[in-house]
Amino acid sequence: MGSDPSSKPEQTVQEDIQFQPEERHGLYKAIFNRRDVRGQFKPDPVSDDVLSRVLYAAHHAPSVGFMQPWDFMVIRDSEVRQKVRGAFDKAHGEATKMFPDEKQDTYRNLKLEGILESPLNLCITCDRNRTGPVVIGRTHIKTMDLYSSVCAVQNLWLAARAEGLGVGWVSIVDEQELQSILGLPRDIVPIAYLCIGYVSHFYDKPELESAGWLPRMPLQELIHFDQWQQRRDGEQESLIQQIETDQTFPTKF
Amino acid sequence: MGSDPSSKPEQTVQEDIQFQPEERHGLYKAIFNRRDVRGQFKPDPVSDDVLSRVLYAAHHAPSVGFMQPWDFMVIRDSEVRQKVRGAFDKAHGEATKMFPDEKQDTYRNLKLEGILESPLNLCITCDRNRTGPVVIGRTHIKTMDLYSSVCAVQNLWLAARAEGLGVGWVSIVDEQELQSILGLPRDIVPIAYLCIGYVSHFYDKPELESAGWLPRMPLQELIHFDQWQQRRDGEQESLIQQIETDQTFPTKF
Repeated sequence: MGSDPSSKPEQTVQEDIQFQPEERHGLYKAIFNRRDVRGQFKPDPVSDDVLSRVLYAAHHAPSVGFMQPWDFMVIRDSEVRQKVRGAFDKAHGEATKMFPDEKQDTYRNLKLEGILESPLNLCITCDRNRTGPVVIGRTHIKTMDLYSSVCAVQNLWLAARAEGLGVGWVSIVDEQELQSILGLPRDIVPIAYLCIGYVSHFYDKPELESAGWLPRMPLQELIHFDQWQQRRDGEQESLIQQIETDQTFPTKF
Repeated sequence: MGSDPSSKPEQTVQEDIQFQPEERHGLYKAIFNRRDVRGQFKPDPVSDDVLSRVLYAAHHAPSVGFMQPWDFMVIRDSEVRQKVRGAFDKAHGEATKMFPDEKQDTYRNLKLEGILESPLNLCITCDRNRTGPVVIGRTHIKTMDLYSSVCAVQNLWLAARAEGLGVGWVSIVDEQELQSILGLPRDIVPIAYLCIGYVSHFYDKPELESAGWLPRMPLQELIHFDQWQQRRDGEQESLIQQIETDQTFPTKF
Protein backbone atom coordinates (compact mmCIF):
# COMPACT_ATOMS: atom_id res chain seq x y z
CA MET A 1 0.00 0.00 0.00
CA GLY A 2 1.22 3.51 -0.74
CA SER A 3 -0.10 6.98 -0.17
CA ASP A 4 -2.97 8.20 -2.26
CA PRO A 5 -2.28 11.03 -4.70
CA SER A 6 -5.86 12.32 -4.37
CA SER A 7 -7.17 14.62 -1.67
CA LYS A 8 -8.62 12.04 0.71
CA PRO A 9 -5.86 10.92 3.05
CA GLU A 10 -7.67 7.79 4.21
CA GLN A 11 -7.63 6.23 0.74
CA THR A 12 -4.45 4.26 0.12
CA VAL A 13 -3.67 2.88 -3.31
CA GLN A 14 -2.44 -0.47 -4.58
CA GLU A 15 1.25 -0.32 -5.34
CA ASP A 16 1.46 -3.35 -7.57
CA ILE A 17 -0.90 -2.55 -10.42
CA GLN A 18 0.65 -4.92 -12.94
CA PHE A 19 0.18 -8.67 -13.05
CA GLN A 20 3.07 -10.94 -13.91
CA PRO A 21 2.43 -13.17 -16.95
CA GLU A 22 2.10 -16.30 -14.75
CA GLU A 23 -0.38 -14.51 -12.47
CA ARG A 24 -2.51 -13.53 -15.45
CA HIS A 25 -2.15 -17.06 -16.76
CA GLY A 26 -3.52 -18.43 -13.49
CA LEU A 27 -6.64 -16.30 -13.72
CA TYR A 28 -7.37 -17.27 -17.31
CA LYS A 29 -6.66 -20.90 -16.49
CA ALA A 30 -9.34 -20.82 -13.80
CA ILE A 31 -11.80 -19.05 -16.08
CA PHE A 32 -11.37 -21.42 -19.02
CA ASN A 33 -11.14 -24.65 -17.00
CA ARG A 34 -14.01 -24.02 -14.62
CA ARG A 35 -16.82 -26.52 -15.16
CA ASP A 36 -20.28 -27.17 -13.81
CA VAL A 37 -19.62 -30.51 -12.11
CA ARG A 38 -22.40 -33.00 -11.54
CA GLY A 39 -21.03 -36.50 -11.65
CA GLN A 40 -17.35 -36.76 -10.72
CA PHE A 41 -17.35 -35.95 -7.02
CA LYS A 42 -15.05 -37.84 -4.68
CA PRO A 43 -16.08 -38.23 -1.04
CA ASP A 44 -12.84 -36.67 0.30
CA PRO A 45 -13.65 -33.89 2.75
CA VAL A 46 -12.88 -30.26 1.96
CA SER A 47 -10.55 -28.90 4.63
CA ASP A 48 -11.37 -25.77 6.60
CA ASP A 49 -8.46 -23.80 5.22
CA VAL A 50 -9.47 -24.39 1.61
CA LEU A 51 -13.13 -23.65 2.37
CA SER A 52 -12.16 -20.49 4.23
CA ARG A 53 -10.16 -19.24 1.23
CA VAL A 54 -12.93 -19.78 -1.30
CA LEU A 55 -15.40 -18.10 1.05
CA TYR A 56 -13.10 -15.06 1.34
CA ALA A 57 -12.99 -14.98 -2.45
CA ALA A 58 -16.80 -14.91 -2.54
CA HIS A 59 -16.95 -12.24 0.15
CA HIS A 60 -14.72 -9.98 -1.95
CA ALA A 61 -17.09 -9.85 -4.88
CA PRO A 62 -18.36 -6.45 -5.96
CA SER A 63 -21.62 -5.42 -4.33
CA VAL A 64 -23.95 -2.58 -5.14
CA GLY A 65 -23.57 0.22 -2.59
CA PHE A 66 -21.11 -2.08 -0.76
CA MET A 67 -24.15 -3.77 0.78
CA GLN A 68 -22.59 -7.26 0.74
CA PRO A 69 -26.05 -8.85 0.57
CA TRP A 70 -24.76 -12.42 0.66
CA ASP A 71 -24.78 -15.10 3.34
CA PHE A 72 -23.18 -18.50 3.10
CA MET A 73 -25.01 -21.57 4.31
CA VAL A 74 -22.68 -24.52 4.81
CA ILE A 75 -24.82 -27.64 4.46
CA ARG A 76 -23.41 -30.95 5.59
CA ASP A 77 -26.40 -32.49 7.36
CA SER A 78 -27.61 -35.49 5.39
CA GLU A 79 -31.26 -35.03 6.30
CA VAL A 80 -31.27 -31.48 4.89
CA ARG A 81 -29.52 -32.70 1.76
CA GLN A 82 -31.99 -35.56 1.31
CA LYS A 83 -34.79 -32.99 1.38
CA VAL A 84 -33.04 -30.81 -1.19
CA ARG A 85 -32.51 -33.87 -3.34
CA GLY A 86 -36.23 -34.64 -3.02
CA ALA A 87 -37.06 -31.10 -4.13
CA PHE A 88 -34.73 -31.53 -7.09
CA ASP A 89 -36.34 -34.87 -8.06
CA LYS A 90 -39.78 -33.32 -8.02
CA ALA A 91 -38.73 -30.30 -10.08
CA HIS A 92 -36.76 -32.50 -12.47
CA GLY A 93 -39.83 -34.63 -13.12
CA GLU A 94 -41.87 -31.51 -13.83
CA ALA A 95 -39.13 -30.16 -16.06
CA THR A 96 -38.91 -33.29 -18.21
CA LYS A 97 -42.46 -32.81 -19.42
CA MET A 98 -41.70 -29.26 -20.57
CA PHE A 99 -39.29 -30.38 -23.30
CA PRO A 100 -40.42 -31.45 -26.75
CA ASP A 101 -40.81 -35.24 -27.08
CA GLU A 102 -37.63 -35.74 -29.08
CA LYS A 103 -35.51 -34.02 -26.42
CA GLN A 104 -37.03 -35.75 -23.37
CA ASP A 105 -34.85 -38.86 -23.54
CA THR A 106 -31.66 -36.84 -23.78
CA TYR A 107 -32.82 -34.62 -20.93
CA ARG A 108 -33.72 -37.57 -18.71
CA ASN A 109 -30.25 -39.09 -19.22
CA LEU A 110 -28.31 -35.97 -18.29
CA LYS A 111 -26.74 -36.02 -14.84
CA LEU A 112 -27.73 -32.66 -13.41
CA GLU A 113 -26.79 -32.63 -9.72
CA GLY A 114 -24.42 -34.12 -7.15
CA ILE A 115 -26.25 -33.15 -3.95
CA LEU A 116 -25.60 -36.37 -2.05
CA GLU A 117 -22.31 -37.51 -3.65
CA SER A 118 -20.44 -34.27 -3.01
CA PRO A 119 -19.09 -33.93 0.53
CA LEU A 120 -20.40 -30.40 0.93
CA ASN A 121 -23.30 -28.25 -0.20
CA LEU A 122 -23.31 -24.49 0.01
CA CYS A 123 -26.15 -22.07 -0.49
CA ILE A 124 -25.29 -18.46 -1.34
CA THR A 125 -28.20 -16.15 -0.59
CA CYS A 126 -29.20 -12.51 -1.06
CA ASP A 127 -30.64 -10.47 1.79
CA ARG A 128 -32.75 -7.92 -0.03
CA ASN A 129 -33.01 -5.65 3.01
CA ARG A 130 -29.47 -5.86 4.29
CA THR A 131 -28.71 -2.17 4.50
CA GLY A 132 -32.19 -0.68 4.45
CA PRO A 133 -34.51 0.28 1.64
CA VAL A 134 -32.31 2.84 -0.14
CA VAL A 135 -29.03 1.51 -1.51
CA ILE A 136 -26.52 3.46 -3.61
CA GLY A 137 -26.67 2.09 -7.13
CA ARG A 138 -29.92 0.17 -6.53
CA THR A 139 -32.23 3.16 -6.66
CA HIS A 140 -33.27 2.42 -10.25
CA ILE A 141 -32.34 -1.17 -11.07
CA LYS A 142 -33.81 -3.15 -8.18
CA THR A 143 -32.13 -6.43 -9.10
CA MET A 144 -28.62 -5.10 -8.50
CA ASP A 145 -28.43 -6.81 -5.09
CA LEU A 146 -29.26 -10.18 -6.65
CA TYR A 147 -26.52 -9.55 -9.20
CA SER A 148 -24.03 -8.84 -6.40
CA SER A 149 -24.68 -12.24 -4.87
CA VAL A 150 -24.20 -13.84 -8.29
CA CYS A 151 -20.78 -12.17 -8.51
CA ALA A 152 -19.96 -13.83 -5.18
CA VAL A 153 -20.96 -17.19 -6.66
CA GLN A 154 -18.67 -16.69 -9.63
CA ASN A 155 -15.73 -15.63 -7.44
CA LEU A 156 -16.19 -18.73 -5.30
CA TRP A 157 -16.49 -20.94 -8.37
CA LEU A 158 -13.22 -19.69 -9.84
CA ALA A 159 -11.37 -19.93 -6.52
CA ALA A 160 -12.69 -23.45 -6.08
CA ARG A 161 -11.34 -24.41 -9.50
CA ALA A 162 -7.93 -23.05 -8.59
CA GLU A 163 -8.08 -25.14 -5.40
CA GLY A 164 -8.87 -28.26 -7.44
CA LEU A 165 -12.50 -28.31 -6.29
CA GLY A 166 -15.46 -29.00 -8.53
CA VAL A 167 -18.64 -26.96 -8.13
CA GLY A 168 -22.10 -27.67 -9.54
CA TRP A 169 -24.99 -25.19 -9.47
CA VAL A 170 -28.36 -26.87 -8.81
CA SER A 171 -31.09 -24.67 -10.26
CA ILE A 172 -33.80 -27.24 -10.97
CA VAL A 173 -35.70 -26.74 -7.77
CA ASP A 174 -38.67 -24.72 -6.61
CA GLU A 175 -37.33 -21.61 -4.90
CA GLN A 176 -39.97 -21.50 -2.17
CA GLU A 177 -39.47 -25.16 -1.39
CA LEU A 178 -35.75 -24.57 -1.04
CA GLN A 179 -36.44 -21.61 1.25
CA SER A 180 -38.65 -23.79 3.40
CA ILE A 181 -36.10 -26.63 3.63
CA LEU A 182 -33.32 -24.24 4.65
CA GLY A 183 -35.51 -22.15 6.96
CA LEU A 184 -35.00 -18.98 4.93
CA PRO A 185 -37.27 -16.00 5.57
CA ARG A 186 -39.09 -14.67 2.53
CA ASP A 187 -36.75 -11.76 1.87
CA ILE A 188 -33.67 -14.01 1.81
CA VAL A 189 -33.36 -15.26 -1.76
CA PRO A 190 -31.42 -18.50 -2.29
CA ILE A 191 -29.35 -17.40 -5.30
CA ALA A 192 -27.25 -20.53 -5.81
CA TYR A 193 -27.40 -23.99 -4.30
CA LEU A 194 -23.94 -25.45 -4.91
CA CYS A 195 -22.45 -28.95 -4.65
CA ILE A 196 -18.74 -28.80 -3.84
CA GLY A 197 -15.97 -31.36 -3.64
CA TYR A 198 -12.82 -32.80 -5.12
CA VAL A 199 -13.32 -34.59 -8.40
CA SER A 200 -11.87 -37.54 -10.28
CA HIS A 201 -11.60 -35.37 -13.38
CA PHE A 202 -12.80 -32.17 -15.00
CA TYR A 203 -14.23 -32.42 -18.48
CA ASP A 204 -12.54 -30.50 -21.20
CA LYS A 205 -15.78 -28.93 -22.43
CA PRO A 206 -19.16 -28.15 -20.86
CA GLU A 207 -21.19 -31.36 -20.76
CA LEU A 208 -24.12 -29.88 -22.67
CA GLU A 209 -21.72 -28.89 -25.44
CA SER A 210 -20.22 -32.41 -25.63
CA ALA A 211 -23.69 -33.96 -25.52
CA GLY A 212 -24.63 -31.97 -28.61
CA TRP A 213 -27.39 -30.13 -26.76
CA LEU A 214 -26.11 -26.74 -27.92
CA PRO A 215 -22.86 -25.56 -29.57
CA ARG A 216 -20.66 -22.78 -28.21
CA MET A 217 -21.52 -19.61 -30.09
CA PRO A 218 -18.75 -17.83 -32.00
CA LEU A 219 -17.80 -14.79 -29.92
CA GLN A 220 -17.60 -12.50 -32.93
CA GLU A 221 -21.34 -13.03 -33.53
CA LEU A 222 -22.10 -11.60 -30.11
CA ILE A 223 -20.39 -8.25 -30.63
CA HIS A 224 -22.34 -5.10 -31.48
CA PHE A 225 -21.01 -1.59 -32.00
CA ASP A 226 -22.65 1.46 -30.44
CA GLN A 227 -26.17 0.25 -31.34
CA TRP A 228 -27.92 -3.10 -31.07
CA GLN A 229 -27.42 -5.21 -34.21
CA GLN A 230 -24.87 -2.78 -35.57
CA ARG A 231 -22.40 -5.43 -36.68
CA ARG A 232 -19.06 -5.24 -38.38
CA ASP A 233 -16.96 -7.88 -40.01
CA GLY A 234 -13.20 -8.31 -39.79
CA GLU A 235 -12.55 -6.03 -42.74
CA GLN A 236 -14.41 -3.16 -41.15
CA GLU A 237 -13.29 -3.67 -37.59
CA SER A 238 -9.93 -4.78 -36.26
CA LEU A 239 -11.48 -6.02 -32.98
CA ILE A 240 -13.51 -8.63 -34.88
CA GLN A 241 -10.38 -9.60 -36.78
CA GLN A 242 -8.55 -10.02 -33.48
CA ILE A 243 -11.36 -12.12 -31.99
CA GLU A 244 -11.25 -14.41 -35.02
CA THR A 245 -7.48 -14.72 -34.65
CA ASP A 246 -7.81 -15.52 -30.95
CA GLN A 247 -10.35 -18.32 -31.39
CA THR A 248 -8.08 -20.93 -29.84
CA PHE A 249 -7.07 -18.69 -26.93
CA PRO A 250 -9.29 -20.44 -24.33
CA THR A 251 -7.83 -23.86 -25.20
CA LYS A 252 -4.30 -22.72 -24.36
CA PHE A 253 -4.76 -23.03 -20.60
CA MET B 1 -6.63 -33.11 -23.10
CA GLY B 2 -6.71 -36.84 -22.40
CA SER B 3 -9.21 -39.61 -22.95
CA ASP B 4 -12.28 -39.73 -20.79
CA PRO B 5 -12.60 -42.62 -18.32
CA SER B 6 -16.39 -42.51 -18.57
CA SER B 7 -18.50 -44.18 -21.23
CA LYS B 8 -18.98 -41.30 -23.62
CA PRO B 9 -16.05 -41.28 -26.03
CA GLU B 10 -16.62 -37.71 -27.20
CA GLN B 11 -15.95 -36.23 -23.75
CA THR B 12 -12.27 -35.55 -23.19
CA VAL B 13 -10.97 -34.57 -19.79
CA GLN B 14 -8.56 -31.91 -18.56
CA GLU B 15 -5.18 -33.41 -17.88
CA ASP B 16 -3.82 -30.69 -15.67
CA ILE B 17 -6.25 -30.57 -12.74
CA GLN B 18 -3.87 -28.93 -10.28
CA PHE B 19 -2.96 -25.28 -10.16
CA GLN B 20 0.58 -24.23 -9.36
CA PRO B 21 0.90 -21.93 -6.33
CA GLU B 22 1.69 -18.91 -8.52
CA GLU B 23 -1.32 -19.63 -10.76
CA ARG B 24 -3.61 -19.77 -7.73
CA HIS B 25 -1.95 -16.63 -6.44
CA GLY B 26 -2.81 -14.86 -9.69
CA LEU B 27 -6.48 -15.70 -9.38
CA TYR B 28 -6.73 -14.53 -5.77
CA LYS B 29 -4.75 -11.41 -6.63
CA ALA B 30 -7.33 -10.51 -9.27
CA ILE B 31 -10.23 -11.25 -6.91
CA PHE B 32 -8.88 -9.21 -4.00
CA ASN B 33 -7.52 -6.29 -6.03
CA ARG B 34 -10.47 -5.81 -8.35
CA ARG B 35 -12.16 -2.44 -7.77
CA ASP B 36 -15.17 -0.57 -9.03
CA VAL B 37 -13.38 2.30 -10.76
CA ARG B 38 -15.05 5.62 -11.27
CA GLY B 39 -12.49 8.39 -11.19
CA GLN B 40 -9.01 7.28 -12.23
CA PHE B 41 -9.37 6.54 -15.92
CA LYS B 42 -6.59 7.46 -18.31
CA PRO B 43 -7.47 8.23 -21.94
CA ASP B 44 -5.06 5.60 -23.34
CA PRO B 45 -6.90 3.32 -25.77
CA VAL B 46 -7.49 -0.35 -24.98
CA SER B 47 -5.88 -2.45 -27.68
CA ASP B 48 -7.83 -5.06 -29.63
CA ASP B 49 -5.82 -7.97 -28.31
CA VAL B 50 -6.48 -7.07 -24.67
CA LEU B 51 -10.16 -6.41 -25.35
CA SER B 52 -10.45 -9.68 -27.23
CA ARG B 53 -9.00 -11.59 -24.27
CA VAL B 54 -11.32 -10.09 -21.67
CA LEU B 55 -14.29 -10.74 -23.97
CA TYR B 56 -13.27 -14.40 -24.29
CA ALA B 57 -13.11 -14.55 -20.51
CA ALA B 58 -16.67 -13.22 -20.33
CA HIS B 59 -17.86 -15.63 -23.01
CA HIS B 60 -16.56 -18.57 -20.95
CA ALA B 61 -18.75 -17.82 -17.96
CA PRO B 62 -21.15 -20.53 -16.84
CA SER B 63 -24.59 -20.27 -18.41
CA VAL B 64 -27.79 -22.05 -17.54
CA GLY B 65 -28.51 -24.79 -20.08
CA PHE B 66 -25.43 -23.55 -21.98
CA MET B 67 -27.68 -20.86 -23.45
CA GLN B 68 -24.94 -18.18 -23.46
CA PRO B 69 -27.56 -15.44 -23.23
CA TRP B 70 -25.05 -12.59 -23.36
CA ASP B 71 -24.15 -10.08 -26.04
CA PHE B 72 -21.41 -7.49 -25.85
CA MET B 73 -22.00 -3.96 -27.03
CA VAL B 74 -18.78 -2.07 -27.60
CA ILE B 75 -19.60 1.61 -27.21
CA ARG B 76 -17.11 4.18 -28.39
CA ASP B 77 -19.38 6.71 -30.10
CA SER B 78 -19.34 9.94 -28.12
CA GLU B 79 -22.94 10.86 -28.96
CA VAL B 80 -24.22 7.56 -27.53
CA ARG B 81 -22.07 8.04 -24.45
CA GLN B 82 -23.31 11.60 -23.96
CA LYS B 83 -26.85 10.24 -23.96
CA VAL B 84 -25.99 7.56 -21.40
CA ARG B 85 -24.31 10.21 -19.29
CA GLY B 86 -27.50 12.29 -19.53
CA ALA B 87 -29.54 9.30 -18.39
CA PHE B 88 -27.16 8.84 -15.47
CA ASP B 89 -27.40 12.53 -14.49
CA LYS B 90 -31.17 12.35 -14.46
CA ALA B 91 -31.26 9.15 -12.39
CA HIS B 92 -28.57 10.46 -10.06
CA GLY B 93 -30.62 13.56 -9.36
CA GLU B 94 -33.64 11.41 -8.58
CA ALA B 95 -31.55 9.13 -6.39
CA THR B 96 -30.14 11.97 -4.28
CA LYS B 97 -33.61 12.83 -3.00
CA MET B 98 -34.18 9.24 -1.83
CA PHE B 99 -31.47 9.39 0.84
CA PRO B 100 -32.05 10.80 4.31
CA ASP B 101 -31.02 14.46 4.60
CA GLU B 102 -27.83 13.76 6.54
CA LYS B 103 -26.55 11.39 3.84
CA GLN B 104 -27.41 13.55 0.82
CA ASP B 105 -24.22 15.64 0.95
CA THR B 106 -21.99 12.58 1.13
CA TYR B 107 -23.94 10.95 -1.69
CA ARG B 108 -23.73 14.02 -3.90
CA ASN B 109 -19.95 14.16 -3.46
CA LEU B 110 -19.31 10.55 -4.44
CA LYS B 111 -17.90 10.05 -7.92
CA LEU B 112 -20.10 7.28 -9.33
CA GLU B 113 -19.31 6.93 -13.03
CA GLY B 114 -16.61 7.43 -15.65
CA ILE B 115 -18.74 7.22 -18.80
CA LEU B 116 -17.00 9.98 -20.73
CA GLU B 117 -13.50 9.84 -19.20
CA SER B 118 -12.95 6.13 -19.86
CA PRO B 119 -11.88 5.34 -23.43
CA LEU B 120 -14.42 2.55 -23.79
CA ASN B 121 -17.88 1.61 -22.59
CA LEU B 122 -19.26 -1.90 -22.78
CA CYS B 123 -22.79 -3.11 -22.22
CA ILE B 124 -23.30 -6.78 -21.38
CA THR B 125 -26.86 -7.87 -22.06
CA CYS B 126 -29.11 -10.89 -21.55
CA ASP B 127 -31.27 -12.24 -24.37
CA ARG B 128 -34.14 -13.83 -22.49
CA ASN B 129 -35.27 -15.84 -25.51
CA ARG B 130 -31.92 -16.95 -26.86
CA THR B 131 -32.57 -20.67 -27.08
CA GLY B 132 -36.35 -20.78 -26.96
CA PRO B 133 -38.81 -20.80 -24.08
CA VAL B 134 -37.66 -24.01 -22.33
CA VAL B 135 -34.09 -23.98 -21.04
CA ILE B 136 -32.43 -26.73 -18.99
CA GLY B 137 -32.02 -25.40 -15.47
CA ARG B 138 -34.32 -22.42 -16.01
CA THR B 139 -37.55 -24.36 -15.82
CA HIS B 140 -38.17 -23.31 -12.20
CA ILE B 141 -35.98 -20.30 -11.43
CA LYS B 142 -36.67 -17.93 -14.28
CA THR B 143 -33.91 -15.48 -13.42
CA MET B 144 -31.14 -18.01 -14.09
CA ASP B 145 -30.41 -16.49 -17.51
CA LEU B 146 -29.92 -13.05 -15.94
CA TYR B 147 -27.53 -14.65 -13.45
CA SER B 148 -25.54 -16.21 -16.30
CA SER B 149 -24.93 -12.81 -17.83
CA VAL B 150 -23.82 -11.52 -14.41
CA CYS B 151 -21.25 -14.32 -14.28
CA ALA B 152 -19.96 -13.06 -17.63
CA VAL B 153 -19.63 -9.59 -16.14
CA GLN B 154 -17.61 -10.89 -13.22
CA ASN B 155 -15.31 -12.95 -15.46
CA LEU B 156 -14.65 -9.89 -17.59
CA TRP B 157 -14.05 -7.73 -14.53
CA LEU B 158 -11.44 -10.09 -13.13
CA ALA B 159 -9.72 -10.54 -16.49
CA ALA B 160 -9.65 -6.79 -16.92
CA ARG B 161 -7.98 -6.39 -13.52
CA ALA B 162 -5.31 -8.91 -14.50
CA GLU B 163 -4.75 -6.90 -17.70
CA GLY B 164 -4.29 -3.72 -15.65
CA LEU B 165 -7.67 -2.32 -16.73
CA GLY B 166 -10.14 -0.63 -14.43
CA VAL B 167 -13.85 -1.35 -14.75
CA GLY B 168 -16.77 0.59 -13.29
CA TRP B 169 -20.38 -0.66 -13.28
CA VAL B 170 -22.90 2.13 -13.88
CA SER B 171 -26.23 1.10 -12.35
CA ILE B 172 -27.78 4.47 -11.60
CA VAL B 173 -29.81 4.73 -14.77
CA ASP B 174 -33.33 3.94 -15.86
CA GLU B 175 -33.28 0.56 -17.59
CA GLN B 176 -35.83 1.44 -20.26
CA GLU B 177 -34.04 4.67 -21.06
CA LEU B 178 -30.78 2.74 -21.49
CA GLN B 179 -32.58 0.25 -23.76
CA SER B 180 -33.87 3.10 -25.85
CA ILE B 181 -30.45 4.82 -26.14
CA LEU B 182 -28.77 1.57 -27.23
CA GLY B 183 -31.61 0.44 -29.49
CA LEU B 184 -32.27 -2.72 -27.45
CA PRO B 185 -35.49 -4.65 -28.01
CA ARG B 186 -37.60 -5.22 -24.91
CA ASP B 187 -36.46 -8.80 -24.30
CA ILE B 188 -32.79 -7.84 -24.32
CA VAL B 189 -31.97 -6.79 -20.76
CA PRO B 190 -28.96 -4.50 -20.28
CA ILE B 191 -27.37 -6.28 -17.32
CA ALA B 192 -24.27 -4.17 -16.86
CA TYR B 193 -23.15 -0.87 -18.38
CA LEU B 194 -19.40 -0.78 -17.85
CA CYS B 195 -16.73 1.92 -18.16
CA ILE B 196 -13.36 0.43 -19.05
CA GLY B 197 -9.85 1.78 -19.32
CA TYR B 198 -6.35 1.96 -17.91
CA VAL B 199 -6.11 3.82 -14.62
CA SER B 200 -3.63 6.02 -12.78
CA HIS B 201 -4.10 3.86 -9.68
CA PHE B 202 -6.37 1.33 -8.04
CA TYR B 203 -7.53 2.05 -4.52
CA ASP B 204 -6.61 -0.37 -1.83
CA LYS B 205 -10.16 -0.61 -0.53
CA PRO B 206 -13.62 -0.11 -2.02
CA GLU B 207 -14.33 3.63 -2.10
CA LEU B 208 -17.55 3.33 -0.11
CA GLU B 209 -15.63 1.52 2.61
CA SER B 210 -12.94 4.24 2.75
CA ALA B 211 -15.58 6.96 2.69
CA GLY B 212 -17.13 5.44 5.82
CA TRP B 213 -20.42 4.75 4.05
CA LEU B 214 -20.44 1.10 5.20
CA PRO B 215 -17.82 -1.17 6.76
CA ARG B 216 -16.81 -4.56 5.38
CA MET B 217 -18.74 -7.20 7.29
CA PRO B 218 -16.76 -9.89 9.14
CA LEU B 219 -17.05 -13.05 7.05
CA GLN B 220 -17.65 -15.28 10.07
CA GLU B 221 -20.91 -13.41 10.76
CA LEU B 222 -22.22 -14.45 7.35
CA ILE B 223 -21.85 -18.20 7.85
CA HIS B 224 -24.81 -20.42 8.76
CA PHE B 225 -24.84 -24.17 9.27
CA ASP B 226 -27.53 -26.39 7.75
CA GLN B 227 -30.34 -23.99 8.71
CA TRP B 228 -30.73 -20.22 8.47
CA GLN B 229 -29.45 -18.46 11.59
CA GLN B 230 -27.91 -21.66 12.93
CA ARG B 231 -24.64 -20.09 13.95
CA ARG B 232 -21.57 -21.50 15.59
CA ASP B 233 -18.60 -19.82 17.14
CA GLY B 234 -14.96 -20.79 16.84
CA GLU B 235 -15.10 -23.15 19.77
CA GLN B 236 -17.92 -25.13 18.26
CA GLU B 237 -16.79 -25.09 14.67
CA SER B 238 -13.29 -25.26 13.28
CA LEU B 239 -14.34 -23.55 10.03
CA ILE B 240 -15.23 -20.39 11.95
CA GLN B 241 -11.93 -20.63 13.77
CA GLN B 242 -10.14 -20.91 10.43
CA ILE B 243 -12.01 -17.92 9.00
CA GLU B 244 -11.01 -15.84 12.02
CA THR B 245 -7.40 -16.93 11.57
CA ASP B 246 -7.49 -16.05 7.86
CA GLN B 247 -8.81 -12.52 8.36
CA THR B 248 -5.79 -10.92 6.74
CA PHE B 249 -5.72 -13.36 3.81
CA PRO B 250 -7.19 -10.90 1.26
CA THR B 251 -4.56 -8.28 2.09
CA LYS B 252 -1.71 -10.61 1.19
CA PHE B 253 -2.09 -10.15 -2.56
